[in-house]
Amino acid sequence: MTIIIEKLEFETIIGILDFERVTPQRVTLDIEISYTYTEKNFINYAKVVEALIKLFQEEKFLLLEDAVQESFLFLKKNYKEIEKISLKIMKPEILKEANVGIKDEISFTTFNSP
Amino acid sequence: MTIIIEKLEFETIIGILDFERVTPQRVTLDIEISYTYTEKNFINYAKVVEALIKLFQEEKFLLLEDAVQESFLFLKKNYKEIEKISLKIMKPEILKEANVGIKDEISFTTFNSP
Amino acid sequence: MTIIIEKLEFETIIGILDFERVTPQRVTLDIEISYTYTEKNFINYAKVVEALIKLFQEEKFLLLEDAVQESFLFLKKNYKEIEKISLKIMKPEILKEANVGIKDEISFTTFNSP
Amino acid sequence: MTIIIEKLEFETIIGILDFERVTPQRVTLDIEISYTYTEKNFINYAKVVEALIKLFQEEKFLLLEDAVQESFLFLKKNYKEIEKISLKIMKPEILKEANVGIKDEISFTTFNSP
Repeated sequence: MTIIIEKLEFETIIGILDFERVTPQRVTLDIEISYTYTEKNFINYAKVVEALIKLFQEEKFLLLEDAVQESFLFLKKNYKEIEKISLKIMKPEILKEANVGIKDEISFTTFNSP
Repeated sequence: MTIIIEKLEFETIIGILDFERVTPQRVTLDIEISYTYTEKNFINYAKVVEALIKLFQEEKFLLLEDAVQESFLFLKKNYKEIEKISLKIMKPEILKEANVGIKDEISFTTFNSP
Repeated sequence: MTIIIEKLEFETIIGILDFERVTPQRVTLDIEISYTYTEKNFINYAKVVEALIKLFQEEKFLLLEDAVQESFLFLKKNYKEIEKISLKIMKPEILKEANVGIKDEISFTTFNSP
Repeated sequence: MTIIIEKLEFETIIGILDFERVTPQRVTLDIEISYTYTEKNFINYAKVVEALIKLFQEEKFLLLEDAVQESFLFLKKNYKEIEKISLKIMKPEILKEANVGIKDEISFTTFNSP
């Protein structure tokens, strides 16, 4: 089972340029979280959304690369049942020519080929 | 051969929050159904669409996770020729910050690696 | 190298319902054609587009399943260098609740796992 | 870690038709660049964007196929840490019936299956 959070948009301090350290900019996150669903155990998407916004706004990441890695650690620490996370973070306002960002995924399970 | 049903939108009771049990909300389904097409055997997309809307509106699922699993069972029971189903269910109105939902896929065939 | 033809839209007779045999409807094709590019050998996307529209409008396919299979045969016959084709055909106007269609892919090369 | 550059749009001379050699047309690039991120080593998306626009506008490529291959060489030469590049180049204005273009990917690492 995979939770999908699409186009999570909020403003935060992020980036290494001088103006990025003082002016909040919009970021857009797309997240997929895979886990084994059982009846007593489901991940609440509303809590994930709230927690990720809080993480970004508190940490004021310098690099998108750091933001991705810290998000992975944070999610796995709070939801041990997570098996895989895909995360894409875009800065839609930073360049006028294109929409730029970073994506990465992390897997916490071991797949053995037959 | 894979049938595609994109952005199937309808209103239904779904969710565990108090207001979700009394107020219908919009859901959006994206479905892919793979099967072996032969000349006398094709799956009618119109009937699949109609049946899925009926299933959701009758079952008034509590969790998206349950809705996905029940949809898999329902489709396989009615179309034995199905080999694989991918299903994504989004609740576009439930959170203001993001479009959230669930996806999963199920395969009814066995692939042997060479 | 993969040629991409996105959102190829045109009107044609297609389908098995009575009104579909007399009233042209809009179809949308997404096509990916993989082949080995060499300097003297490239596939002209304009010719592929023109030929596919002609094929659909002449054949007036009954089923999207047939349209996909005939398109595969037609393309491979005319472009022997093709190694793989992915084709998605949607009928955006046939159902009000969803955008429905078919996709399939065919590979003409053999991949051996190591 | 994968850098994403989406919908990089600019005008350039590109193509083999007579009018394409004299009239700049709009191209749209989607790029994914995978590399191993370490703290002292990150790829600056702004510099990649600037350099790719410059490459296209200087080279005035005849074929999209050439543009893809030259872009791969250029990026790998300037960023040795790159492990994989996916590149899609579309010419959104060249055909009225469809959005057409080319995509390809190149991998500079060797993956051994277990």
